[in-house]
Amino acid sequence: MKFRLITLAAVLCSQMSLAQDSVIFRKISDEIMLHGTCYENLRVLCKGVGNRISGSPAAAKAVEWGKKNMKTAGADSVWLQAADVPYWHRGSESLLIKAGNGQYKKVSALSLGNSEGTGGKVLEAKVVMVANYDEFKALPESAVKGNIIFFNYKFRQDFIFTFQAYGDAVKYRWGSPSIAAAKGAAGVIIRSMSTGADDFPHTGSMHYTDSIKKIPEMALGNISADSLEQYCKRGTVKAKMQSECHITDKPIRSYNVIGEIKGSKYPDKIITVGGHLDSWDVGEGAHDDGAGCAQSIEVIRAFKALGIRPKYTIRAVLFMNEENGLKGGQAYADSAAAKNEHHALAIETDAGGFAPRGMGMEMSEEKKDKIRAFQNLFLPYGVYDFSNDEGGADISAIQKKLNVPVAGLLPDSQRYFDVHHTNNDVFEQVNHRELKLGATVLTQFIYLVSEHEIF
Amino acid sequence: MKFRLITLAAVLCSQMSLAQDSVIFRKISDEIMLHGTCYENLRVLCKGVGNRISGSPAAAKAVEWGKKNMKTAGADSVWLQAADVPYWHRGSESLLIKAGNGQYKKVSALSLGNSEGTGGKVLEAKVVMVANYDEFKALPESAVKGNIIFFNYKFRQDFIFTFQAYGDAVKYRWGSPSIAAAKGAAGVIIRSMSTGADDFPHTGSMHYTDSIKKIPEMALGNISADSLEQYCKRGTVKAKMQSECHITDKPIRSYNVIGEIKGSKYPDKIITVGGHLDSWDVGEGAHDDGAGCAQSIEVIRAFKALGIRPKYTIRAVLFMNEENGLKGGQAYADSAAAKNEHHALAIETDAGGFAPRGMGMEMSEEKKDKIRAFQNLFLPYGVYDFSNDEGGADISAIQKKLNVPVAGLLPDSQRYFDVHHTNNDVFEQVNHRELKLGATVLTQFIYLVSEHEIF
Repeated sequence: MKFRLITLAAVLCSQMSLAQDSVIFRKISDEIMLHGTCYENLRVLCKGVGNRISGSPAAAKAVEWGKKNMKTAGADSVWLQAADVPYWHRGSESLLIKAGNGQYKKVSALSLGNSEGTGGKVLEAKVVMVANYDEFKALPESAVKGNIIFFNYKFRQDFIFTFQAYGDAVKYRWGSPSIAAAKGAAGVIIRSMSTGADDFPHTGSMHYTDSIKKIPEMALGNISADSLEQYCKRGTVKAKMQSECHITDKPIRSYNVIGEIKGSKYPDKIITVGGHLDSWDVGEGAHDDGAGCAQSIEVIRAFKALGIRPKYTIRAVLFMNEENGLKGGQAYADSAAAKNEHHALAIETDAGGFAPRGMGMEMSEEKKDKIRAFQNLFLPYGVYDFSNDEGGADISAIQKKLNVPVAGLLPDSQRYFDVHHTNNDVFEQVNHRELKLGATVLTQFIYLVSEHEIF
Repeated sequence: MKFRLITLAAVLCSQMSLAQDSVIFRKISDEIMLHGTCYENLRVLCKGVGNRISGSPAAAKAVEWGKKNMKTAGADSVWLQAADVPYWHRGSESLLIKAGNGQYKKVSALSLGNSEGTGGKVLEAKVVMVANYDEFKALPESAVKGNIIFFNYKFRQDFIFTFQAYGDAVKYRWGSPSIAAAKGAAGVIIRSMSTGADDFPHTGSMHYTDSIKKIPEMALGNISADSLEQYCKRGTVKAKMQSECHITDKPIRSYNVIGEIKGSKYPDKIITVGGHLDSWDVGEGAHDDGAGCAQSIEVIRAFKALGIRPKYTIRAVLFMNEENGLKGGQAYADSAAAKNEHHALAIETDAGGFAPRGMGMEMSEEKKDKIRAFQNLFLPYGVYDFSNDEGGADISAIQKKLNVPVAGLLPDSQRYFDVHHTNNDVFEQVNHRELKLGATVLTQFIYLVSEHEIF
């Protein structure tokens, strides 16, 4: 009998707690949906600063934007954390295609990030199309030597979670130049990592294998790639590639922006939530990742505006250089290790400012289960998926270095790879309610973890 | 022992069936995500026909579009079903506002659908602002008489499911003119039914109470409404309203477009799936409800392309006149009753071409439970919510008349009331993957219901 009474009491307590959490969840939602400033902050970042590749003057302006808004949000303390970053500069570029005996025509293309261009000279060569690496391997060296290889691997529209398609295809962006150069190719064209029913080319990071010649790499939008595919099927195709892109030798001093609310009960236990402040040098870096930065600041603002003092210390971090070096994430991890900080959890929001659907978690099953016990609280906010193990690139360094559990906001993924790394990733592509709803769920998640002392 | 064996066999059978369903679900998804034509069909409707209010020449063109595409999709039979519809015509209109002793300035406004305008004359009057009906009731008759009442009721951004906000606010659009006229008002201005962080005014249907004078009603976009609110707080505001809108006396002959696949096992049991072909006379009726029409046609196309012959007869119906009369839905119900048809289920898709999140259901709890037993099959497609009882306006007539169970596709609702009934509801606002994913889920749902003979 006593046992049953205790069980009953425990059940009642847990239900009262759930009811209380649900009230706070609603307060957080109302505060952000009605008074949130993330959308307006993002507008200023996109329209006032614009794109902001690491090391650029615009990236320095973005740091100022972050510092100012973190203070306005009411963080107890705001500081900059130094990170020395590479500076990749695009310069002028063009890609012209000639099918058969036709004229050269300019196509819409972008050099891939970190790649070395043609040094401004024109590289004219035959285009050889392959559908994938298997087809490339089967080519005799004579078919590759001196030519431009078109890796026509298609971004798979049949994956519903589009990050799966990205994971499937991105190796063609990342590694093709060295693979092609090892067999004597002069340049590489790829099909963009794109779901777009349009012709925007998508840039993004690539890397060279040491000791192999660095050849240029350009990405085509889907419509241009479809055309090139048809030309190649019909006969001989030639291309003229010209680009000035290169990485400057000397790293440039830049910064992460950090804002903090001190925890009431465990000031030394830190929950980090962040996005990245740098973007590629096209568009406005709206979804990638102005959205995540604006949301991370909003978390701080919402706690302060509601007068909720979290038990753990909450740190919003705007990381520098996620796109082409991860130096900000590394600097953050190094600093945490040097100061012997106790990081309870690190959360990233870098999957676009779309309506949230879930939280990814990479942590022990025990911790996951503790969180999942509360997952129905998120249902009224459209969040139901706690099955993925997604964190984020910026927090991967601290995850590895200090074995910190990580989580990531999982917004709806349908539109992300339409705009990702393109001139079309602009403020107008972000919906105010979707952005705010993402910030709402992030704040609710952090509140929950801190309030229930899950870590 | 025997009992346990039977139980085991039942469990195994049900799991084998789930695995089989899951394979068909994937085939449906691949077919639509890779080869779906709904996005291209929608483009032609939006750009080739444009907006298409009932009774207009454009609506007649839309009927032709529907018939053609239903045939191309491979329906066993395609026919038109007559429906006599009202024709509301907007004509020219303008709203000018003067704050204090300032100048009259034009604001962005739309007359509400079915309303009678000023007969082209200028109605100049004082603007009296109220926040809601309670405030209006408290006004003395002298404060209303001859004036234009501004019902400044705010569309609530704190509801996460935006249709809840619509349900909360829409009475101000629907009924305000008669309520205001009963107390002597000369005209009505409302704040649009809008989540928009912009100034697009939203039209939509209203009605007059018989025997009360028909006064004009116009809606303002959110930014203009915010300004007008400020002006009214500061002092006297006057308005000049001019509009020619009216309903023509004689109904106009129009049509529903119907395409059918005959069922293999129960040809006489019909599952209807539909959206509405008419739109308001602004924008392109892309989300409302070109999307639903294109998706309904896609259901037919997918069954045919995959060679799946459903057990029940599947009927895609493009209803006419959802927006301002529901004459198409009524004609469909009347015909079904007259022919003594057995309608197993009617499904509507009229909540925008956004990424799907659920299916609403209005039917017996027993049927709901039968469907919910399969709901995990939808999770990989982002669909998790089977808790709402939403059908749709077009199928409400057959639901009432023949007691037909109904269901409705529930897409993400965040962006719907940004564009709903505005000049901004254009093709560019529809994402190709979101639209196709909605069609995928509709097709999967219909396949499931038919294959498992749930009705």
